Amino acid sequence: MRSSDVLNPASVAIVGASSDPERIGGIPIATMLQQGFAGELWPVNPARSDVQGLRCYDAIENLPAAPDAAIVAVPGALAADAVEALARRGTRSAIVFSAGFAEAGAAGAELQQRMVRAAQASGLRLFGPNTIGLFNAHAAYYPFFSTAFERGFPLPGRIGIASQSGAVGSQIFNIARNRGMGTPLCITTGNEADVTLGEAIGWLVDHPGIDVIVAYLEGLRRPELLLQALEAARRARKPVIVHKGGRSALGASAVQSHTAAIAGDDRLFDVVLDEFGAVRAEHTEQMLDIAYAAARRIYPVAGTLGVLTLSGGAGIQMSDAAERAGLAMPQMDGGSQQRLQALLPFASPVNPIDITAQSLNDIDLVGHFAREVAERGGYEAIAVYLAGVGGSLKKGPVLRRSFADVARAHPDRLWTILTTADREAVAAYEQDGLLVFEEPARAIHAIGALARFGRAFARPEAPALSQAMSPATTGAPLPATVPNEAEAKAWLASHGVACLPEALATDAQAAAAAAQGMGFPVVLKIVSPDIAHKSEVGGVQLDLRSAGEVRSAFAAVTAAVARARPDARIDGVLVAPQIADGVECLVSVHRDPQLGLFAAFGLGGIFVELLQDVVFRRCPFDEAAAHAMIAGIRGAPLLRGARGRPPADVDALARLLSRLSVLAHRHGERLRSIELNPVLVRPAGLGAWAADAVIELAAAGSGETRPCENR
Amino acid sequence: MRSSDVLNPASVAIVGASSDPERIGGIPIATMLQQGFAGELWPVNPARSDVQGLRCYDAIENLPAAPDAAIVAVPGALAADAVEALARRGTRSAIVFSAGFAEAGAAGAELQQRMVRAAQASGLRLFGPNTIGLFNAHAAYYPFFSTAFERGFPLPGRIGIASQSGAVGSQIFNIARNRGMGTPLCITTGNEADVTLGEAIGWLVDHPGIDVIVAYLEGLRRPELLLQALEAARRARKPVIVHKGGRSALGASAVQSHTAAIAGDDRLFDVVLDEFGAVRAEHTEQMLDIAYAAARRIYPVAGTLGVLTLSGGAGIQMSDAAERAGLAMPQMDGGSQQRLQALLPFASPVNPIDITAQSLNDIDLVGHFAREVAERGGYEAIAVYLAGVGGSLKKGPVLRRSFADVARAHPDRLWTILTTADREAVAAYEQDGLLVFEEPARAIHAIGALARFGRAFARPEAPALSQAMSPATTGAPLPATVPNEAEAKAWLASHGVACLPEALATDAQAAAAAAQGMGFPVVLKIVSPDIAHKSEVGGVQLDLRSAGEVRSAFAAVTAAVARARPDARIDGVLVAPQIADGVECLVSVHRDPQLGLFAAFGLGGIFVELLQDVVFRRCPFDEAAAHAMIAGIRGAPLLRGARGRPPADVDALARLLSRLSVLAHRHGERLRSIELNPVLVRPAGLGAWAADAVIELAAAGSGETRPCENR
Repeated sequence: MRSSDVLNPASVAIVGASSDPERIGGIPIATMLQQGFAGELWPVNPARSDVQGLRCYDAIENLPAAPDAAIVAVPGALAADAVEALARRGTRSAIVFSAGFAEAGAAGAELQQRMVRAAQASGLRLFGPNTIGLFNAHAAYYPFFSTAFERGFPLPGRIGIASQSGAVGSQIFNIARNRGMGTPLCITTGNEADVTLGEAIGWLVDHPGIDVIVAYLEGLRRPELLLQALEAARRARKPVIVHKGGRSALGASAVQSHTAAIAGDDRLFDVVLDEFGAVRAEHTEQMLDIAYAAARRIYPVAGTLGVLTLSGGAGIQMSDAAERAGLAMPQMDGGSQQRLQALLPFASPVNPIDITAQSLNDIDLVGHFAREVAERGGYEAIAVYLAGVGGSLKKGPVLRRSFADVARAHPDRLWTILTTADREAVAAYEQDGLLVFEEPARAIHAIGALARFGRAFARPEAPALSQAMSPATTGAPLPATVPNEAEAKAWLASHGVACLPEALATDAQAAAAAAQGMGFPVVLKIVSPDIAHKSEVGGVQLDLRSAGEVRSAFAAVTAAVARARPDARIDGVLVAPQIADGVECLVSVHRDPQLGLFAAFGLGGIFVELLQDVVFRRCPFDEAAAHAMIAGIRGAPLLRGARGRPPADVDALARLLSRLSVLAHRHGERLRSIELNPVLVRPAGLGAWAADAVIELAAAGSGETRPCENR
Repeated sequence: MRSSDVLNPASVAIVGASSDPERIGGIPIATMLQQGFAGELWPVNPARSDVQGLRCYDAIENLPAAPDAAIVAVPGALAADAVEALARRGTRSAIVFSAGFAEAGAAGAELQQRMVRAAQASGLRLFGPNTIGLFNAHAAYYPFFSTAFERGFPLPGRIGIASQSGAVGSQIFNIARNRGMGTPLCITTGNEADVTLGEAIGWLVDHPGIDVIVAYLEGLRRPELLLQALEAARRARKPVIVHKGGRSALGASAVQSHTAAIAGDDRLFDVVLDEFGAVRAEHTEQMLDIAYAAARRIYPVAGTLGVLTLSGGAGIQMSDAAERAGLAMPQMDGGSQQRLQALLPFASPVNPIDITAQSLNDIDLVGHFAREVAERGGYEAIAVYLAGVGGSLKKGPVLRRSFADVARAHPDRLWTILTTADREAVAAYEQDGLLVFEEPARAIHAIGALARFGRAFARPEAPALSQAMSPATTGAPLPATVPNEAEAKAWLASHGVACLPEALATDAQAAAAAAQGMGFPVVLKIVSPDIAHKSEVGGVQLDLRSAGEVRSAFAAVTAAVARARPDARIDGVLVAPQIADGVECLVSVHRDPQLGLFAAFGLGGIFVELLQDVVFRRCPFDEAAAHAMIAGIRGAPLLRGARGRPPADVDALARLLSRLSVLAHRHGERLRSIELNPVLVRPAGLGAWAADAVIELAAAGSGETRPCENR
């Protein structure tokens, strides 16, 4: 279904229509009448023949035709009946205001399911229940109940709102309008029985009248649709700014590996937003700051900022903010700096360029400086700090004319004025194509977000997609049951993941012989399908330097495990070379029940468990992405040869990480996690070797995992 | 000098007085005439006999009496002449607007020095030069030039502004006034030739009309006065909110130890603010958010927050924000929750308490809920989310009456309304004692800051002070010249800092004998006054397990050092036991040239150098503070026995850290740094031992350090 179908109906039934323009069943009618909705409005209420001057019908069955859309404002079972009747007639979308469904317990959930069944059978799209609805100001289509219109209707503009929460969506609209920002389209999804936030964002992305999308969500239903919408937005160069409430609400991961527990779903959500080039906001105000700036559709890809200021102090503050926002503030060349000083000798031509408040004695100077900076500085974004002067009664209008001229001459730059001014003065600057903020730190944070969008838009395609399309590997199929360590390693090795050579021994003599074949020192490790964390049960012995030590260690390991886990099935003891020159890392993949497969990477031991110095990325990904992950941990210098060590074989590590991500992706939903801990990354040229491997599989047909991670 | 002397002069001379009310020499006269300054105004200008209707004098010498205060608005040498003349007459304060002094080069700096000399000789207090001045609206005293008054004068209120930057100070006033916040006192310090920001804050703290201080600074002159002012503010329960621009501007530390380089002056500034209970803001808007909330003078010491909301989504957002702000959101007891549900069955009585927008059908319910939550929830702060309804034309006034009643009944609570409303509606709530914010996240951040103030105000005395007053230790005096490792350890041991036993050997045989006395394994380390980092020159050998190994190692160490540093003076080789069960830590003190002595603590090696997992604290401090430091690193669990290790002797470590902080403090400015790296923290009961010690001393009379760290 396209956005035009949902947002532009030719006829709308209002089931539970009210004559009172302040009641839920009356507000949408009153609003649409007042705003001049051009289509048909068909009130439905068996108790009335006339509602707000419109002919009222006694039943959905008796409407003159199938309405394109319907508002349902009757409670409980009546609402479900109404949806069924609408579905029978062929209505294409229904907005169910009524509450008391899945959010209110089992009986409500059953009613909600009844609506969903009817909708799905007929192709009717269901909004809510428990939603305040949506609106499309272009069409004066207002199936929306809120007090937010009391102080005014949406302004013209190109920002769309998508929100799970009706109250939050309505408040976003309210605050945006008070800031002079136009949000003609708004979709709130409520209980999301059918339409979810991802689809709502997708419709906004599709809509030719929308350039920027702000979205609020808490939980996450049908994440695959959200990811699709984010990717569509990125390709269409439409920024999506997401505020997610409830940092633990994504739902607890069922995966039991260490990294999954550390990850936290919220962190994975950040990883996904970043992958798709969406930007996360901490709160509504910040979301609207970014949307306001984004509406100019100028994205400073290189992130260069020139600052012009009447106050040295403000210039310093803006430099601080630019550093936090990841923006660069390069200098103009020497000749250009001299030209600035020729304009005003006591000005400081070093970015942030301080023309001092004394320049106000000749107010035209500010404009001259702005022109020089635009012509010769090469900055993508130019921010001008005017304190209160930009809004002053006398000097403000002069400044406004100067900036209108220079912005017209350089429309490719993102011009921002920092000043305190009343709404009228702000609107005047905005009309000339300039952004206006009062707090410099907020402006610069928003500009930083635009630079992130610019970089995301410049990417040809999401890396995960191209990777997924490369030909299938030829390794062994996923084992039918949970493999032991040796089986896991053999399976991984068949897919090109380097594992340490090793042998499974079932008696001390065989262990000693295997060790002699590999060369000392070696390690011994118990092998049991019932024991995941071996060292906790005494199942590991390190640094064994002779056949005799190996034999004693074999006895010690088996005895300790027998004491600690007498019930465990024992397959034998693994013998492997002990690598002394490897940097210990942890590499793993795990399936998040909502967002799909993620790989994790960190240095081993305390770095992961204590310092949580781990990075994540959605699977699959290529070696370049793996290199970026490896560089992303705080401890990365240890792999580059810090503290006198030789540089580690980061290329081999990246290869291993990427291969693991691809093979995990290829083997489908039954694979829940693979943990390689440690991976020993030896000096450059000597490889990265998995020294242990634990694979978790879902029980067959358990339904514990959900299809979502790729499109 | 007291604030009343500076802020309430009975007579004011204006040197360089202008008839033009828009020129620098004219603005203050026009302003004070308009606002009704009650004292004498004496223009000084040899070219005029009348200025803005006032008699004008031709010279300072010819004024009818010594003016209490003077504004100097003449350039360059004339300004210095004027200050000298004012000083001769006995004027108590001069505000020098003129620019072109220390900020403009050597000639200007000399003129500035001339003013300072004249001022200091007579006791005249000098503001600026290069300042836009100060104002005291209570006295209509406006020695201030700015366009900020164009749109209005300070509102009544109890917030004081102190700012180095005149433009920033003026803009803080401007924004505050637009938000309806009263800032009757403002002091900007400009070049700070005499009066610095610390003193300005101190005067605001002293002033009975001021409850809250907002301060902006960049550099830091006379930090001891700032610390005094912050401690005075803490004792007077007056919050100080500091915005510091220029994160690298505190000046580079001259100390060369590792930790000093990592510290960054900005981080030390944070440490100091935290110690004195001041709160740092990231930008002006955030600073004013906190000041606005602080003006109610209610500090939630326990940091408990009850949230009442019309929107579940907003409740979730506020919970997120509370977690970020360090606020607790405990639940009401079961009986109280039942009472809430009796009011409205479908409300969620779990904090954040969601009464849903449906409650608006009976608008009085909101007030009933608020009363229950206040009476039975025990929350120090109560925040109520009303979306746009709090400002709505019909329901807003009803809500306002409800909240006025409940706030009057519970004036000890910090009441905050989250709503979108126009200025008049906001002012109405404020009159009833409620705070109003539009963005919940900003409100809750501010409430979190108030909780920090509450905890700081509850402390009886700054710990550093009590510690400094305890009796002097009896250890040896600071060595006259830089001690070698053995001397350093002996000196430290005399002050109760545990150092590993060790012996200095000058030949291989003596080294072996010493090692046999201590027991194996041992380490050898070169001892030279010329070598600070021994392992870099091959001057360390570890894990020596026999007399033979010690003898070979002695030869290896001396040969390696002779190769690497043939010029170095060698005192011998130190023999010490090698501890295998110690956690390696770094403990150090270093003197910041501005903020004084700081101790640093972290785990050794990569934890400090790579992960920068280090905490700092101003010296001296007691063991409780040392325990807090130790618990403050990310890697702290390693000391508590993570990953199967025995818990380390944290008590001994805290004792060592505190003792080092006290002895460093006691031995004065010549001591530049002490670095104990590693300190080996053995299992509980076995102590924490410094295994290496490097002491840096300032050259005698070098003047490289400055007196500031204690009062």
